[in-house]
Amino acid sequence: MASPEAISTPRGMRDIKPEEMDVRERMLDGIRRVFRLYGFQPLETPALESWEVLSAKGAGGAEILNETYNFEDRGGRRLGMRYDLTVPLARFIAMNPSIPLPFRRYQIGGVWRYGDVAKGRFREFLQADADIVGSESMLADAEIAACAVDVFVELGFKEFMVRLNDRKILSAMIRFAGIEESKVDDAFRAIDKLEKIGEEKVFGEFSQRRIPKEAGKKLMELLSIKGEPDEALKEAERLIGGITEGREGIEELRKLLACAGKIGREEYFKVDFSLARGMEYYTGPIFEVFFSGKVGSLAGGGRYDRMIGLFLGKDIPATGISFGIDRIAEVMAKEYVKSERGVFVAGVDESCSDEVLKAAKKFRGGGIPAMFDLRGRSLGKQLNYANSLKIPFVVIIGKEEMKQGKVKLRNFESGEEKLVSLEECIELIKSG
Amino acid sequence: MASPEAISTPRGMRDIKPEEMDVRERMLDGIRRVFRLYGFQPLETPALESWEVLSAKGAGGAEILNETYNFEDRGGRRLGMRYDLTVPLARFIAMNPSIPLPFRRYQIGGVWRYGDVAKGRFREFLQADADIVGSESMLADAEIAACAVDVFVELGFKEFMVRLNDRKILSAMIRFAGIEESKVDDAFRAIDKLEKIGEEKVFGEFSQRRIPKEAGKKLMELLSIKGEPDEALKEAERLIGGITEGREGIEELRKLLACAGKIGREEYFKVDFSLARGMEYYTGPIFEVFFSGKVGSLAGGGRYDRMIGLFLGKDIPATGISFGIDRIAEVMAKEYVKSERGVFVAGVDESCSDEVLKAAKKFRGGGIPAMFDLRGRSLGKQLNYANSLKIPFVVIIGKEEMKQGKVKLRNFESGEEKLVSLEECIELIKSG
Repeated sequence: MASPEAISTPRGMRDIKPEEMDVRERMLDGIRRVFRLYGFQPLETPALESWEVLSAKGAGGAEILNETYNFEDRGGRRLGMRYDLTVPLARFIAMNPSIPLPFRRYQIGGVWRYGDVAKGRFREFLQADADIVGSESMLADAEIAACAVDVFVELGFKEFMVRLNDRKILSAMIRFAGIEESKVDDAFRAIDKLEKIGEEKVFGEFSQRRIPKEAGKKLMELLSIKGEPDEALKEAERLIGGITEGREGIEELRKLLACAGKIGREEYFKVDFSLARGMEYYTGPIFEVFFSGKVGSLAGGGRYDRMIGLFLGKDIPATGISFGIDRIAEVMAKEYVKSERGVFVAGVDESCSDEVLKAAKKFRGGGIPAMFDLRGRSLGKQLNYANSLKIPFVVIIGKEEMKQGKVKLRNFESGEEKLVSLEECIELIKSG
Repeated sequence: MASPEAISTPRGMRDIKPEEMDVRERMLDGIRRVFRLYGFQPLETPALESWEVLSAKGAGGAEILNETYNFEDRGGRRLGMRYDLTVPLARFIAMNPSIPLPFRRYQIGGVWRYGDVAKGRFREFLQADADIVGSESMLADAEIAACAVDVFVELGFKEFMVRLNDRKILSAMIRFAGIEESKVDDAFRAIDKLEKIGEEKVFGEFSQRRIPKEAGKKLMELLSIKGEPDEALKEAERLIGGITEGREGIEELRKLLACAGKIGREEYFKVDFSLARGMEYYTGPIFEVFFSGKVGSLAGGGRYDRMIGLFLGKDIPATGISFGIDRIAEVMAKEYVKSERGVFVAGVDESCSDEVLKAAKKFRGGGIPAMFDLRGRSLGKQLNYANSLKIPFVVIIGKEEMKQGKVKLRNFESGEEKLVSLEECIELIKSG
């Protein structure tokens, strides 16, 4: 026997119970369906990667390696648990140089990071990524963005928004604000935290990093340009259109939006110049999906033209998105999903057990999950058990019902009971 | 850049490419659908478990621990990657003592074993398990066995067979053959290998373990009793019915078969007394699913009434099944599945690009995966690309087609071309 105090999940990891899994599985089905419609093909890679791959130039970098579970196997090879799905993608491309490009792949799988543990922050979490490798065209970014919108529509989301920005616009704004070249990385890092810590504290960071107050203020003004995509981009052009990078970034977003409007649903897109993410990683358009502002971003991505190239030693452009499964599941559980648990078939006594089995077989044949007693319990205890599993419908079979060739259907929620044939029963359950 | 020779998957692990993943995803969808119909609920547990849990009494035992990837995390806790899905289930039950029993759960997930690497033997593999915890009834075993049959029927298998035996019958046969108590484990271990090494070598093992030749021979005769389930059980009863365990085992299989006939499809069941598996683990009925004898078992399971009890320190009966995803996928890829890859929408030149996007949107809206060019390629190159992805249909849009409000649909396999409206096109592709 395991000692009782030792019986737990590792710190920062958890079981996902049936009620939560129901939501997740429905969610993943929806995500997969939309990914496939956009021509993304599934790929699976091992949970473990060699340390050489995880620590290669172009991969996640020193900070993330610090948070990577790693060990030497018995053969003396250092292995690490993957911390994202992008490095495995780059490794896959490197190992399969003749794969037709553009390569559209999706991958859904666990990743592991030995980070600080907090409420809602785990050391094992599920990611769903879709990427297009080998296209420089803004059409590819539009595909990714349109696909993101369709995923949330498919999942039943209504109030959500895709916030778009471009790494090049951010660079141009920093320069236009008069922040010197050597401080650009510092400024990016401070801006990166805008969402988390607020404007006031970003100013604090600016001064700590010796970015002049005036420049910082000017930058914040630029970042807060708002409005419909067209207007916001026009205003940005007026200010930073003179800087090559700025002009390029604006042009990228215009193309992206024009294409996304044709492929998908443009009403979900919004330009937000304050959006900054992984500034050392992304090279073009970036975006995040937000749900009525109440929770953090549900998905995010963008163009990263250098990462795979660095990894492989030759240039390969790429763009992609990653969905935060835990957060989406949390929203869905609260807002959208009603669980389906089928039917429990209860027998009044031993003599009905054959009929119980036959009925269960018929329900399953009709596509309705069905369970019955496995412990020889009394009717009352069977009903308690069904109730404890939150099964919405119980079918009761007794001598009287058998004689009439019928069953008693009870709706647990309403308490309503009906005497019906099995066929009617299946119809009633299917229609809720 | 990663050094080219370092760019590989860890030894014994591999990527699963899109063509293979297509089969797998369809397979897992089918398995999940049947699991749910039988009232199994999804559970997910971490890839890592604490070493205390993995090495607890009742868990996998010393041999498997030798093959378990393990390491100390930065907090000095020893963690191991799970080697099966049953130990996590036992740990889950221990952590959730108030969960309603019987608890029917399924789990689909990776497991890791640092074993010898050979063709088709990997160190990371996917398992799909369904278990019922907390019922002693043969009805539970019948549910598991019937569910296994329905899974294979759902997946499109025709020639397969569930071979049934009972741990208690095997024990009684060993005793009846005159093999002494102290040699029972040795005999089991030898019989365990019957499938793999053949009768001759099992005899060799017998003599090595000092089991008398006569006793060994008698045992092999008992194990080879064949026939329809009823007949085989009757013959077994005639021989070992005098031994309590034997009588119990025969009674168990009779009940199981009677119930399975009512819940499921009895024509797939066969009694095979030579079937032996994990004899130190299983306590009652055991079974394996075989496909036309060409490959090893595709799924296997049985009743294990002691394992969870040992782990928890109190008695909890359990029965379950594990599906070998890799092997099933291999058979399905060869025998049953045709890949679906949707449509590639090709534009004759730049001027058609709007129409290409609109068409793709329409296909996706109609449930057909659709892709188009992202690199500004010529029509010929677009067609080559589509072909390299094995996309069966290409839709070609040019000026002439646009004028007529039609598109050209080409079936890559037959080479056939048709001028049709988009709506007709969707219908044609859907009907294959």
